[in-house]
Amino acid sequence: MSEVFSGISNIKFEGSGSDNPLAFKYYNPKAVIGGKTMEEHLRFAVAYWHTFAAPGADMFGAGSYVRPWNTMADPLEIAKYKVEANFEFIEKLGAPFFAFHDRDIAPEGATLAETNKNLDVIVSVIKDRMKSSPVKLLWGTTNAFGNPRFMHGASTSPNADIFAYAAAQVKKAMEVTKELGGENYVFWGGREGYETLLNTDMKLELDNLARFLKMAVDYAKEIGFDGQFLIEPKPKEPTKHQYDFDTATVIGFLKTYGLDPYFKMNIEANHATLAGHTFQHELAMCRINNMLGSIDANQGDVMLGWDTDQFPTNLYDSTLAMLEVLKAGGLTKGGLNFDSKVRRGSFEPSDLFYGHIAGMDTFAKGLIIANKIMEDGKFDAFVADRYSSYTTGIGKDIVDGKVGFKELEQHALNAKIQNKSGRQEMLEALLNQYILEAK
Amino acid sequence: MSEVFSGISNIKFEGSGSDNPLAFKYYNPKAVIGGKTMEEHLRFAVAYWHTFAAPGADMFGAGSYVRPWNTMADPLEIAKYKVEANFEFIEKLGAPFFAFHDRDIAPEGATLAETNKNLDVIVSVIKDRMKSSPVKLLWGTTNAFGNPRFMHGASTSPNADIFAYAAAQVKKAMEVTKELGGENYVFWGGREGYETLLNTDMKLELDNLARFLKMAVDYAKEIGFDGQFLIEPKPKEPTKHQYDFDTATVIGFLKTYGLDPYFKMNIEANHATLAGHTFQHELAMCRINNMLGSIDANQGDVMLGWDTDQFPTNLYDSTLAMLEVLKAGGLTKGGLNFDSKVRRGSFEPSDLFYGHIAGMDTFAKGLIIANKIMEDGKFDAFVADRYSSYTTGIGKDIVDGKVGFKELEQHALNAKIQNKSGRQEMLEALLNQYILEAK
Amino acid sequence: MSEVFSGISNIKFEGSGSDNPLAFKYYNPKAVIGGKTMEEHLRFAVAYWHTFAAPGADMFGAGSYVRPWNTMADPLEIAKYKVEANFEFIEKLGAPFFAFHDRDIAPEGATLAETNKNLDVIVSVIKDRMKSSPVKLLWGTTNAFGNPRFMHGASTSPNADIFAYAAAQVKKAMEVTKELGGENYVFWGGREGYETLLNTDMKLELDNLARFLKMAVDYAKEIGFDGQFLIEPKPKEPTKHQYDFDTATVIGFLKTYGLDPYFKMNIEANHATLAGHTFQHELAMCRINNMLGSIDANQGDVMLGWDTDQFPTNLYDSTLAMLEVLKAGGLTKGGLNFDSKVRRGSFEPSDLFYGHIAGMDTFAKGLIIANKIMEDGKFDAFVADRYSSYTTGIGKDIVDGKVGFKELEQHALNAKIQNKSGRQEMLEALLNQYILEAK
Amino acid sequence: MSEVFSGISNIKFEGSGSDNPLAFKYYNPKAVIGGKTMEEHLRFAVAYWHTFAAPGADMFGAGSYVRPWNTMADPLEIAKYKVEANFEFIEKLGAPFFAFHDRDIAPEGATLAETNKNLDVIVSVIKDRMKSSPVKLLWGTTNAFGNPRFMHGASTSPNADIFAYAAAQVKKAMEVTKELGGENYVFWGGREGYETLLNTDMKLELDNLARFLKMAVDYAKEIGFDGQFLIEPKPKEPTKHQYDFDTATVIGFLKTYGLDPYFKMNIEANHATLAGHTFQHELAMCRINNMLGSIDANQGDVMLGWDTDQFPTNLYDSTLAMLEVLKAGGLTKGGLNFDSKVRRGSFEPSDLFYGHIAGMDTFAKGLIIANKIMEDGKFDAFVADRYSSYTTGIGKDIVDGKVGFKELEQHALNAKIQNKSGRQEMLEALLNQYILEAK
Repeated sequence: MSEVFSGISNIKFEGSGSDNPLAFKYYNPKAVIGGKTMEEHLRFAVAYWHTFAAPGADMFGAGSYVRPWNTMADPLEIAKYKVEANFEFIEKLGAPFFAFHDRDIAPEGATLAETNKNLDVIVSVIKDRMKSSPVKLLWGTTNAFGNPRFMHGASTSPNADIFAYAAAQVKKAMEVTKELGGENYVFWGGREGYETLLNTDMKLELDNLARFLKMAVDYAKEIGFDGQFLIEPKPKEPTKHQYDFDTATVIGFLKTYGLDPYFKMNIEANHATLAGHTFQHELAMCRINNMLGSIDANQGDVMLGWDTDQFPTNLYDSTLAMLEVLKAGGLTKGGLNFDSKVRRGSFEPSDLFYGHIAGMDTFAKGLIIANKIMEDGKFDAFVADRYSSYTTGIGKDIVDGKVGFKELEQHALNAKIQNKSGRQEMLEALLNQYILEAK
Repeated sequence: MSEVFSGISNIKFEGSGSDNPLAFKYYNPKAVIGGKTMEEHLRFAVAYWHTFAAPGADMFGAGSYVRPWNTMADPLEIAKYKVEANFEFIEKLGAPFFAFHDRDIAPEGATLAETNKNLDVIVSVIKDRMKSSPVKLLWGTTNAFGNPRFMHGASTSPNADIFAYAAAQVKKAMEVTKELGGENYVFWGGREGYETLLNTDMKLELDNLARFLKMAVDYAKEIGFDGQFLIEPKPKEPTKHQYDFDTATVIGFLKTYGLDPYFKMNIEANHATLAGHTFQHELAMCRINNMLGSIDANQGDVMLGWDTDQFPTNLYDSTLAMLEVLKAGGLTKGGLNFDSKVRRGSFEPSDLFYGHIAGMDTFAKGLIIANKIMEDGKFDAFVADRYSSYTTGIGKDIVDGKVGFKELEQHALNAKIQNKSGRQEMLEALLNQYILEAK
Repeated sequence: MSEVFSGISNIKFEGSGSDNPLAFKYYNPKAVIGGKTMEEHLRFAVAYWHTFAAPGADMFGAGSYVRPWNTMADPLEIAKYKVEANFEFIEKLGAPFFAFHDRDIAPEGATLAETNKNLDVIVSVIKDRMKSSPVKLLWGTTNAFGNPRFMHGASTSPNADIFAYAAAQVKKAMEVTKELGGENYVFWGGREGYETLLNTDMKLELDNLARFLKMAVDYAKEIGFDGQFLIEPKPKEPTKHQYDFDTATVIGFLKTYGLDPYFKMNIEANHATLAGHTFQHELAMCRINNMLGSIDANQGDVMLGWDTDQFPTNLYDSTLAMLEVLKAGGLTKGGLNFDSKVRRGSFEPSDLFYGHIAGMDTFAKGLIIANKIMEDGKFDAFVADRYSSYTTGIGKDIVDGKVGFKELEQHALNAKIQNKSGRQEMLEALLNQYILEAK
Repeated sequence: MSEVFSGISNIKFEGSGSDNPLAFKYYNPKAVIGGKTMEEHLRFAVAYWHTFAAPGADMFGAGSYVRPWNTMADPLEIAKYKVEANFEFIEKLGAPFFAFHDRDIAPEGATLAETNKNLDVIVSVIKDRMKSSPVKLLWGTTNAFGNPRFMHGASTSPNADIFAYAAAQVKKAMEVTKELGGENYVFWGGREGYETLLNTDMKLELDNLARFLKMAVDYAKEIGFDGQFLIEPKPKEPTKHQYDFDTATVIGFLKTYGLDPYFKMNIEANHATLAGHTFQHELAMCRINNMLGSIDANQGDVMLGWDTDQFPTNLYDSTLAMLEVLKAGGLTKGGLNFDSKVRRGSFEPSDLFYGHIAGMDTFAKGLIIANKIMEDGKFDAFVADRYSSYTTGIGKDIVDGKVGFKELEQHALNAKIQNKSGRQEMLEALLNQYILEAK
């Protein structure tokens, strides 16, 4: 096994004036901001699937990525090579975490038993490699959507054998995540949804989804896995309608089945926009419901209707996201996982560095700007003033539950109402000033 | 006051071969289908706002509708004329219900007291008129979004005086609805949402929305109003983000605040599609959560991104909607309210008949088709067979909660998995056959 | 090679009452309607790529389709098996045509020369097989988007070698199409577009696209290929922006480069909706510009933002499409090619029949309805009356070019304007009546 | 008439560090950049309709804007007050231009003659006021969509009297624009489109649209109006489908009717996104077709499906727009017209300043960044290198028209193809660096 990224040295912080595309302009891991280092704030992770497992294919074309294992034949040897590539890449990049699906790291065998054996082989390789590496596991998860057996769903399959298969797979993946010290375990309902209601029993499928998650909670307790459980909402794709549509939907589902104490959200920017929400909206919904777990940092193309999973380079999004994160008290166990893939035309190995550097700098700058906004407190003061009527008089009575419709009618019959402008345009200009000037 | 629709007689059922555009081809009110008359199944209502209050304006042009009161000056006289038009129209049309917002039926005065007085005058006129009419009130509601005072919301306004004003308005509208025998009361969160998170305290706004609904529940109890409370989801428009995004969101919100026992949904077809769902999806979500209250029957243009509120003429939508209604056991207190407006270019009074006839025939045919589908049971049998693995063996154990991940892993290690086709194309062809052949 | 669809006999017309899902309910090939047989009107084609070449994969999962060649190893043997499957399938289905891309029918070799040799082998097999089959070739085309070499486009690639390669490929595919008697040749600009303007010279790319098409015109003339050239518009996917966005865009492009005499359109329903148009709109744009060539009959999901390529089962779409076709004087050299794929969960071989039967019945019924609408002339009469002011007086003067702004101002100063309702609701109800009653 | 904006002084440039929301941070009118002043580059215009004529209404609520004329009764007096407000506002703001529709500035009368008289009165007031003001007219246009008479279109109305009326209106508006020294005349096809093809003769409507534009060209020649004619594309809203869908569509239409020499485009950002394009895309399409006329500077909300006309505050959009403008050689006769409205909740007069300042600073910064990008030439160099294969060898032969398919096949059979990465992620990171660092 040769070095994968042989021409590329460790990525360094060179600051905003640098002309070097293989250097950080804004991400300075040890720089302290708001009492913590950037590294501690941002907790970046590299996604195994997009970075090492994916071939660069799309619905209209075959894999384009140039990777050294493209011509290799033995699946386990390829898998080992990818492990090495993962650690070499992340160490050179200087990110603290990686994240994976079970099937990203090891090939499927002819039977489940063989597949599990393959997984054990590679997990052992990874575990060994982690001993000499600063790179840790942010989270593990299960790919229960790629194999054709999951064509109609996993825990929501009409086929009970598939439910069982998915259960076996999550059981194993959870064990593996525990073994590798993973801090979270993610549930993304790959094909938990439907194509047409003409052939679907939605009630049974949702009940089964809840049964499945309950079993996962029980099993985690049984084996002492204390990582955070995360659900990742997505509204559509691959299925026409996915059950975990968005944060609000998932919260309702969890409450319906009494599962809300056991899960937080893993919010992906591109999934938010597919659901018709901004990235910030989904994070804010999590924050106010104490449901913010982790983030899949990427970016969709709002002119396109599918999950483009681009590297995040929009400073508005990263700033407003980091503002929500700071308001929520930070990511704690979660992180910023780049669920992002280089474009199919960015097929050279170095593009993986360009993509991650772009994303890390974008979020680092977003953190700097958001922190400055928080420290200055101008937006907070505007909002506090805007809602100040609820801190005294009739407003306080409303909040304190002291009045009902009759008292409010009496108030309204005599009130002289005066609204104040929402000042959206002024605030947007102020946001631009922060983006352009915060250092 | 002259007759408004002077050239038009009572609309009659003439059957599918009729050439008369002012006759029903499929809606035969007293025809019995599945044990009830069509009239009892469908419970059609005419929307006061689109039919009598609206001028036919849009964002780019002034009102186009030709209505006899267009040249009148006195607001109360206009209001009385509209009452007469409402009853004349619905009686000629042969629909059993109407529905209104408080501000549709009576003009605002200079003060809330004066506004309430105007409302009392017109409610009295309506009450009198109802004595001699078969037409009943399906539901009442409050317009707490049109007046500029609600620019930043009503119960979610940053201004406590506005919260109080909205409370006073709902109190009065609920009293009026009770007085007129309304069977339901609808909450559509006209501007309960936000334009930008830069100036918004979403947590306080949602808390206040819950406080407001709690007060409504309390007040209904106090005055003995036993109509059904309905929340009408909509994702966007007029605000950028509306809190009652869709059924799933509202269910989560109600559960978060312990309000779920007191509300059901009023599902509007066009709001469903704006949220990225089919009409059928929203109805199915209601059905399986026992939340189906009533329906706002209209149709959006899926190529357009705003609420077009067209008269429903799509037979697929009406068939699949009625299928959900029949599966849910019928509309009970709810109805099919035409929250539909004639196009701005359909400006003549007769177009109101053409629009409603189109909608009523579309839903009548939908009922006929859905009833036939239910009677034949082919789709149900397909679905039952598709999920049959959950009625025996490991599937039954899953449903009965007898197994966990360990038992399922043992099963999966030995299972020989065999999927069955979902047969979407075959089922879609079968649906077409029902649409074309059901009589 | 065993029979692929061994359990399935020739599909027969059994009429609307049939319970047999493997029979036609509306498509009766030899039935005469409006002076031609249904078969002559509809000119159905089966798409080689979706039906025989595709594995049933999507962006989140591997191929699911069960096909007898799934376990075979030799690419040329697989290709021959697929040829046999193609003819067996279409003969049993009773469709008159097939259509293919060069790479659907034969595998790529290690070099272009080898690839061309593979193609020759299979073309020879097809040619032989056609001698004993009623099945003809509707059109051929080139797949210049799937191989990674086309990652940045084919004729719009920034790499001149790729332009040359694509030219070589189209040259060969055109020769092959001619050899097999293809009646049309299609240009779909698979990756002719851009991902980001940051790295794109749009002007050069469009110039090159025009140069390429000009060479194709020249070469067709040189070899005496007299099939119709068709351009297939699509707005996005796989690239962010595709140059052949929609019919209007392509017309503008062709006129800019003087190429409009040499091309017509191949309109795909799902591409229309991705561009924000109805299927009917795109067909109407073709019709009034004398640009209607052929149709890719499928259906998108308007709630989803990607090309779902579903079998067409919507009767509104098929009716309005056939209305445009009839108004245009028929499809002449073109056809209705099912650019449709069975859902990934419809993985069994029989689903290919269910899908095509669904589509053929939908268009057959659409033809019946459209023909009845044309014969009755009610819609045409309404439209003629609506625009009748342009047949006399000032309207005729406008059309005849006899007046300018000054004369029109004089007219307007004195005109008493009276509009007439557009009657959209009445017309939509009438359309429903035709759909439900036309036999 | 009192001062409208009495508490607000002239807006000054205070630089990026300023805390004053009523000062420019980036727009420094006399600062020289790339050989011209910022003022000359940007040519900002204030839109009369949004700023002075609009009430702040939307489809769900009445006008909210607080304006001193809200309580006035006499239409002509209100109109005069607005003239004064227009000049006071623009002079304080320090913008060089305004723009208007005929009906923005003067009220309609009972007849066309009376309406024209009203227009003459106000035009005279404006003309007088312009003598003492630095403010000039960027463009005039006609509102032929707001009055119900235009419910079915203006030049595409099925009613010839409406065609004549619209002609009279454009004639007058063009005269007025000439009289006031307007540098351009804009055609936005407000309702030139259709609601349903069931009642539409699209061919006649498009022919009539062309006839109308031809008459406008003739009349301009006749009266010696030498302003630039501009067509403003928009895909939908108010009608379901607007004929001037986007730049590519309009170019095709103009070429079809031989009108392309007489028109350029007025590109609106929000219209671009409604058509599924980026703002930059539409500008680039204009640039490469030599069709860039002027810009309607605003911003849509890509999560919403209607024309929100927000003030432009997105630095990516303004940077990439100004890059296209600079590449095109500047705006020449055109300008950056704020077709933008303050949010309905930004109802105070000062919000008009906040909105315009936000927009002007955003475009000023965009200009600074774009100019730096142009001067550095890094993006241009990347693009030139990417396409360099067309400057020598086979690529040059292609461009020079020296080769056809046969020569290219020979080349392809022997070529060793090597692609280069498109480097999208690296370029996006570089763009961020320019945005954050350009001064």
